[in-house]
Amino acid sequence: MARAWSLKARPQGMPKHTDFAMIDLDQSTLGAGEVRIANRWLSVDPYMRGRMNDVKSYVPPFALGEAMQGGAVGEVVESNDDGIKVGDMVLHMAGWRDEAVVPAAQVQKLPALDVPPQAFLGQLGMPGMTGYFGLLQVAEAKAGDTVFVSAAAGAVGSTVVQVAKAKGMTVIGSAGGAEKCAWVKSLGADAVIDYKSDVPVVKALGEAAHAVGSGGIDVYFDNVGGEHLDAALAHANMHARFAVCGMIDVYNSGAATQLKYLARLIGNRVQIHGFIVSDYMNRAEEFYKDMGGMLAAGTLKRQETVHEGLETMPDAFLGLFSGGNTGKMLVKV
Amino acid sequence: MARAWSLKARPQGMPKHTDFAMIDLDQSTLGAGEVRIANRWLSVDPYMRGRMNDVKSYVPPFALGEAMQGGAVGEVVESNDDGIKVGDMVLHMAGWRDEAVVPAAQVQKLPALDVPPQAFLGQLGMPGMTGYFGLLQVAEAKAGDTVFVSAAAGAVGSTVVQVAKAKGMTVIGSAGGAEKCAWVKSLGADAVIDYKSDVPVVKALGEAAHAVGSGGIDVYFDNVGGEHLDAALAHANMHARFAVCGMIDVYNSGAATQLKYLARLIGNRVQIHGFIVSDYMNRAEEFYKDMGGMLAAGTLKRQETVHEGLETMPDAFLGLFSGGNTGKMLVKV
Repeated sequence: MARAWSLKARPQGMPKHTDFAMIDLDQSTLGAGEVRIANRWLSVDPYMRGRMNDVKSYVPPFALGEAMQGGAVGEVVESNDDGIKVGDMVLHMAGWRDEAVVPAAQVQKLPALDVPPQAFLGQLGMPGMTGYFGLLQVAEAKAGDTVFVSAAAGAVGSTVVQVAKAKGMTVIGSAGGAEKCAWVKSLGADAVIDYKSDVPVVKALGEAAHAVGSGGIDVYFDNVGGEHLDAALAHANMHARFAVCGMIDVYNSGAATQLKYLARLIGNRVQIHGFIVSDYMNRAEEFYKDMGGMLAAGTLKRQETVHEGLETMPDAFLGLFSGGNTGKMLVKV
Repeated sequence: MARAWSLKARPQGMPKHTDFAMIDLDQSTLGAGEVRIANRWLSVDPYMRGRMNDVKSYVPPFALGEAMQGGAVGEVVESNDDGIKVGDMVLHMAGWRDEAVVPAAQVQKLPALDVPPQAFLGQLGMPGMTGYFGLLQVAEAKAGDTVFVSAAAGAVGSTVVQVAKAKGMTVIGSAGGAEKCAWVKSLGADAVIDYKSDVPVVKALGEAAHAVGSGGIDVYFDNVGGEHLDAALAHANMHARFAVCGMIDVYNSGAATQLKYLARLIGNRVQIHGFIVSDYMNRAEEFYKDMGGMLAAGTLKRQETVHEGLETMPDAFLGLFSGGNTGKMLVKV
């Protein structure tokens, strides 16, 4: 029988293992137009923390006691739809489970790009699109700009670093620890800040901006909020643009963000734009085309942190908040 | 002999009277191309606090021991320039003094609008342009929008309220105390919040947005930062636009701004834009034309808080930070 993770209790602050419970799924019969998918790869993403709260947001909260949702890639093993065949590899949102039964209209065949299937949960999927459109559309970054990106070793940030370099920008990345910093540097970043070091981010960013010769930043891609956002405000150049897609620093604590340099946005005419990648889903073709070209040219590097087995799903999810991943965090079923 | 206020010491936190000193100005001879102006009205504005710090900003710091600068309106009493005649009323930046000697190129004859001359330091001057372009250009406010404006009884805010109403918007204003709130209401605001009451701004704004039938705000015009900005984030509608021209809450304290609702900008795709009115100075004609039409139609109300005599200039300036003014704060020489 298929199994899925459910939310047993709504977490207070940092989620605990006891907030999750495995449940059985009775989905022995396949309805008209439905497909059965053996999930191979499951995604955990920071935004899922928001769905664990019972508040109105841009995605509805997880229902207690029911199977959770999230990005997944799997192989179709049974189909009641003419367009989807047994053996097709598909992307869908019925994750957190080993087997999914969903309407065929809710699955997408994997695009024809020369990458392993799980890449469509990371660099070629939602995180990659977040980085791509956030950088190029929301922040309107262009060749010659100095771009600062936080969580630069993560699934979104590592895409930002590489797309920015491919487009002729100067890049300063922030990551936690020497190993991640070295990886971000290997992606092409011109300077890297280790936010886990003793140097405050605001100081480290100032030094990095000096080192790369710009003296400040034109673009900030914000995955984390908090101290990084404040540092970006402190070193923003005139007419800097900030694209904000995540604030992992406050997802669990709910603490107020303290911004010492906020007033700088006036004199420097800074623009701060919040965004959600789903606003750009209708431009996926453009994304696949451009990223496909970079892949073919060997420009893109990709890394994954993989947990094995459905049982490890809560571990993988919790690891997102302690910097447990380099590149995309995945669970292999 | 002409006299001027100088900065004697750079203020720490809230400026004190002892930070200012009156000095004599030796300007008995008039150079080529210069004009001598008997100042009639002097402006004090919150942005001047920034010039008292010795830091790089969008306007250079005041030099210690020298005459300070600021908006002023006066009558030309001597002229070495063919374009400016004795008797002309002019607008210029050599304020904080009773008599100014400046190059004719740095003065502007008052536009031909039927208002008293001091209006060109307020509603028809820099504060009015800040409100006008901030609302219509920076925040892209349009008919039907619900607009929240802080410091709504101030020179900038009272312009925002009236322009917004004239353009078919719903307006929620915030001001301190019953008297100012009543005045803001009389300007046409649909709802008014008294931020000095016991009700937190975030709660009061939620109730006001409910009362005016919008449930949230589409535009926030920020003069103050801090608690008001956080409340605006808490009640921002989808795709809300914030125009930020001032953060008087932190000008003196330099304290970090605490934002509890900052992460809301992601899901609601909020745009926050800092701006400086000088970016729009080349569009002054457009402003005078539109505002002139509203004046002629009797749409615009104006109020001033007037201190008498050059000696009162520091009092007037300090009053800005304790809510001492309704409408534009001025010193009559």
